[in-house]
Amino acid sequence: MDNKKNRAVVRVPGTSANCGPGFDCLGLATTIYNYLDLTLLRSSKVIVESSGEGTENIPRGRKNLAWQAVRRLLQEVGRADEFKGAIIRTDNHVPIARGLGSSSTAIVGGLTAANEILGSPLDKHELLKLATELEGHPDNVAPAIFGGFTVSVMDKGAVQTFSFLPRVKLKLVVAVPEFELSTRLARKVLPKNVAMRDAIFNISRASMLIAALVEGREDLLPLAFDDALHQPYRKKLVPGMSEVFTAAKEAGALGAAISGAGSCLIAFTTIKSKLEDKIAAAMVEEFKLHDVKSKALILDVDKRGAQIMRRISK
Amino acid sequence: MDNKKNRAVVRVPGTSANCGPGFDCLGLATTIYNYLDLTLLRSSKVIVESSGEGTENIPRGRKNLAWQAVRRLLQEVGRADEFKGAIIRTDNHVPIARGLGSSSTAIVGGLTAANEILGSPLDKHELLKLATELEGHPDNVAPAIFGGFTVSVMDKGAVQTFSFLPRVKLKLVVAVPEFELSTRLARKVLPKNVAMRDAIFNISRASMLIAALVEGREDLLPLAFDDALHQPYRKKLVPGMSEVFTAAKEAGALGAAISGAGSCLIAFTTIKSKLEDKIAAAMVEEFKLHDVKSKALILDVDKRGAQIMRRISK
Repeated sequence: MDNKKNRAVVRVPGTSANCGPGFDCLGLATTIYNYLDLTLLRSSKVIVESSGEGTENIPRGRKNLAWQAVRRLLQEVGRADEFKGAIIRTDNHVPIARGLGSSSTAIVGGLTAANEILGSPLDKHELLKLATELEGHPDNVAPAIFGGFTVSVMDKGAVQTFSFLPRVKLKLVVAVPEFELSTRLARKVLPKNVAMRDAIFNISRASMLIAALVEGREDLLPLAFDDALHQPYRKKLVPGMSEVFTAAKEAGALGAAISGAGSCLIAFTTIKSKLEDKIAAAMVEEFKLHDVKSKALILDVDKRGAQIMRRISK
Repeated sequence: MDNKKNRAVVRVPGTSANCGPGFDCLGLATTIYNYLDLTLLRSSKVIVESSGEGTENIPRGRKNLAWQAVRRLLQEVGRADEFKGAIIRTDNHVPIARGLGSSSTAIVGGLTAANEILGSPLDKHELLKLATELEGHPDNVAPAIFGGFTVSVMDKGAVQTFSFLPRVKLKLVVAVPEFELSTRLARKVLPKNVAMRDAIFNISRASMLIAALVEGREDLLPLAFDDALHQPYRKKLVPGMSEVFTAAKEAGALGAAISGAGSCLIAFTTIKSKLEDKIAAAMVEEFKLHDVKSKALILDVDKRGAQIMRRISK
């Protein structure tokens, strides 16, 4: 069997969900990437090798998330009997369990690579459907597939996503704390019911955020990243959260938010402001005052989503 | 005193707030108008004459809403000692107490006309601030001032509004029931707390609605007009509401919603679909099955908001 034909390498962006008010529907792709090199096997061996972030915690064998995605795609297109195993090599740069969508990169990477090898039987919207099913929500997988910003609506179990590139040229500053935060715990602290006025707070700001980004209205952004629905409850899980937001804004950021379910905090500025280093320093410094060790990532908005790469020589 | 200098005539559009998911923040201006002819007087007489919709219920004298707006503007710009009264003539086409923003037309009309007479000391954003204060919320006054669609965010008592013309060319079908509905009652039926999942339902749909309208993506609209936060509770105040929505959609509408706090229901279609008559008939017919007499208005999106008119000869 010609190995080349059964192999594909994919680059998948880390993502940041919610962006403040867009709880469980808004997300963006960033220019930090995980790489996945997939070879489909006719035998039922599953071999996983990885380097980079989280290597020690990535399940080997059939419990591996990327393999589960590969397998799901094989089933979907009726090729699961033909390919029963895989060699999966990953090189990961997205910090894990920090709210930057690392698990989504494994899912989207596995689906995209397998789809490529099989001659692209599924389009991006079909991949999104499978990825949402595997991840449980579309917040991170949508921007990981499409790139840019994404708005996702769940309707009777089906997902519909709109992706766009903002006309405001944003620079992203992410403060990555040393500690991890499980999405499960970050969800557990949320109430089942919220005040109507908090719901309206978020509806108006999410609407303003989309409008400002799509229309290139930087002047409207300073109000648009605020949230009343999830961050107030998650504050206790991220020591210094509010103060880091304030520090970022005082250093010139347009706004700041928890990235996904945390623990990362993300601040937004424009490329032309050239304030990213100042904002990054202010966030890390403020975290330190709350006994949280962190490092800063300065990123752009990824415009393309998951991409097939030419062969990587290792 | 030269009367011409103290007189201005303004045309103000009727408006539809909420548009489904955008509860208390989204609104649009329509091509049904009220006219207000204002003459400022140095004497303290307030004379109100009106024709058209709601004539019998419009307060004469100093309790008149348009006069209160005029007076507020005079105070704001320090001219209240100079002009103590007014002649206000209105010609109204916007049905009252039906959720089409008739009270906002009086406020915006009074403010805009007085501002014009005084040489436009305030800009539209300053007029919006006063109008929001008088009306209590920006949902209708914002589109009445700016035209098009508006997204409004309240921040510590201050209002910020973004207005835009949708790239999807919409046609509006409004079913106007015979019965009135007070905003106060329509607010009273709403709960103080709502389910988090209903909040997310609306955040995602409002975000999708803005994105689809701004980017001209008609294909994304069918999900985007749905609401889980206010309409389910107001259903009992508008007999047949859900069924009229269904009838409108079955006749080809992209979506349907309560207009403001009701009693009107508004359906959305495109100009090019030419389905407006069919949708209108379906809505009126369905209302009839629920013993509600109604008439239909077929309207466009007003693009300009409140406009100063050349002198109207009466």
